[in-house]
Amino acid sequence: MMKPDIEFEQRARARQMQLTKPPGALGRLEDIACWFAARQRREIPLALVPAITVFAGDHGVTAEGVSAFPSAVTGEMVKNFARGGAAINVLARTIDARLTVVDAGVHDCVDDVPGIVHGKVRAGTANLAREAAMTRDEAQRAIALGRAQARADIAAGASLLIAGDMGIGNTTASACLICLLADADAEAVVGNGTGIDAAGRARKIDVVRRALTRVAHRQWQDGSDCLAELGGLEIGAMAGYYLEAAAAGVPALLDGFISTASALVAQKIEPAVTDWLIASHLSFENGHRIALQKLGLSPLIDLQMRLGEGSGAAVAVPILQAALRLHAEMATFAEAGVSEKHD
Amino acid sequence: MMKPDIEFEQRARARQMQLTKPPGALGRLEDIACWFAARQRREIPLALVPAITVFAGDHGVTAEGVSAFPSAVTGEMVKNFARGGAAINVLARTIDARLTVVDAGVHDCVDDVPGIVHGKVRAGTANLAREAAMTRDEAQRAIALGRAQARADIAAGASLLIAGDMGIGNTTASACLICLLADADAEAVVGNGTGIDAAGRARKIDVVRRALTRVAHRQWQDGSDCLAELGGLEIGAMAGYYLEAAAAGVPALLDGFISTASALVAQKIEPAVTDWLIASHLSFENGHRIALQKLGLSPLIDLQMRLGEGSGAAVAVPILQAALRLHAEMATFAEAGVSEKHD
Repeated sequence: MMKPDIEFEQRARARQMQLTKPPGALGRLEDIACWFAARQRREIPLALVPAITVFAGDHGVTAEGVSAFPSAVTGEMVKNFARGGAAINVLARTIDARLTVVDAGVHDCVDDVPGIVHGKVRAGTANLAREAAMTRDEAQRAIALGRAQARADIAAGASLLIAGDMGIGNTTASACLICLLADADAEAVVGNGTGIDAAGRARKIDVVRRALTRVAHRQWQDGSDCLAELGGLEIGAMAGYYLEAAAAGVPALLDGFISTASALVAQKIEPAVTDWLIASHLSFENGHRIALQKLGLSPLIDLQMRLGEGSGAAVAVPILQAALRLHAEMATFAEAGVSEKHD
Repeated sequence: MMKPDIEFEQRARARQMQLTKPPGALGRLEDIACWFAARQRREIPLALVPAITVFAGDHGVTAEGVSAFPSAVTGEMVKNFARGGAAINVLARTIDARLTVVDAGVHDCVDDVPGIVHGKVRAGTANLAREAAMTRDEAQRAIALGRAQARADIAAGASLLIAGDMGIGNTTASACLICLLADADAEAVVGNGTGIDAAGRARKIDVVRRALTRVAHRQWQDGSDCLAELGGLEIGAMAGYYLEAAAAGVPALLDGFISTASALVAQKIEPAVTDWLIASHLSFENGHRIALQKLGLSPLIDLQMRLGEGSGAAVAVPILQAALRLHAEMATFAEAGVSEKHD
């Protein structure tokens, strides 16, 4: 696991004090520049090269009626990603990011979909309300899949990694993981997902409680056993993606609820992973704030988004790029001949 | 004054329901697309062409010790803008916006600064704690200057107008206007500006109260008399800029504290101006929230910025562009062969 270098953060902070603005007037943009300085090991960090990978997987828990959409939508959306028609395709073009789609565990066969990574660990999880979502071996293979994809994105030149999710039912699995790993109650964590009504949400809370009761006496060894019991294949891959980012010393920008649940799994496996994570947006989904707090992160924006796919992260990328350009390109007081603050 | 066309907003809303995502999952990005649909009179609005104009002016009230920087900084920063070294220069490049700097009332002579609009109405205002900041005629000339600049930006092809400010002392004038026009108390509105300490803030509150007491028995006719008593030359120009944007039916994106005080002046002159205004960020400066509420607007981002220059607005522009591209480019359920939500 790489460590950020605080000396570069301090040098960046000193530079911020010399730029032609009142100290602190750029608010969190100043903090962003200094955060990247420590991680790129440069007083003036380079512009970010973002890569987005969407991991797709299905969830046996949909048998409990926890989603407003049928499971078939996961595979249908994989085809939509491949054709360029989904929200994340548009946003990837907007921020000039490389976009990869990985089948980590879609129920339906998507073998004939061109241009995606075919990494299916199994055809959807089992119903976590009744049994383990997957085996420990499958959980580890899902993590390894995400790790390999992070290596591929870094090898292709990415300096900012974004993982997105697609998986009907995955807010239920994520809610289970957040309750378990952030020690929170289902009532506070479960939201409306893709748009279930109040009765659906009550059913979903009940499902999460049954799953948590089922594993209540487990002795957890690390995050991969939590993942096996309560997670998802795309969630495991995303956790692996974050772990590899941290291992390689490349920052990862979190997305929303599913992404943050995945990051909690990664944190359980390796606590120092959070040194390399930055939060993008606050999801409208209940419980996202709780998960971010457990990671020690504050979101940059709150636009009431709840789509997943990496969309909230992609919307925040221009803020990061703006912060770095301001840091790099603004004149100093001395360069511009501008008077400094009174003593 | 142009009126938005709600029929196009409704057509855009119907389109959003057909895009391949759960209804509402893009949160405020959906609202943004529909808002611009009504104003561009197109179901699918075009990408925005932003223009930024920074209006500069000085403030006689600096004699009261209300700012952490000397008045000379206003003219020095005008030169920094002209050379491309200020934050707004960097951000304008980032969002590919045309940037214009207007001398609306800088105290020092900047006649030899190339590439700026020389529109000086007077060399800084009088001390508003003791007397009217400017005459009614000067206030109207400042407004006319901003109107002319909005026409120039629109003629150059802009479809989104951003006004920024530069003026040492202008948070004091803005606080006076916000207290007057939003019926708020100085304690709630006055902030630390460019970085004064607690004693400086107490002095600033006292100055604002003295100014408000001085005009307490005035019978106000319209916003231009409020501007003359308590405003600034750049504030008047910004108010005129917003009025002309609304008259021409071109949306204007507000910046922070000064921008919003200017919008309150415009609202006092012509209440319907707010139909054409959209809020960008929440300034760290106290009282910004109060001013936005009076305008009926909600900010998109909160990054604890407090720089002015149009910087908060510029940082928010990519969010608007992303919203419009999603609206234009995402596939519909029918196009993508994706199943819709359960009934």
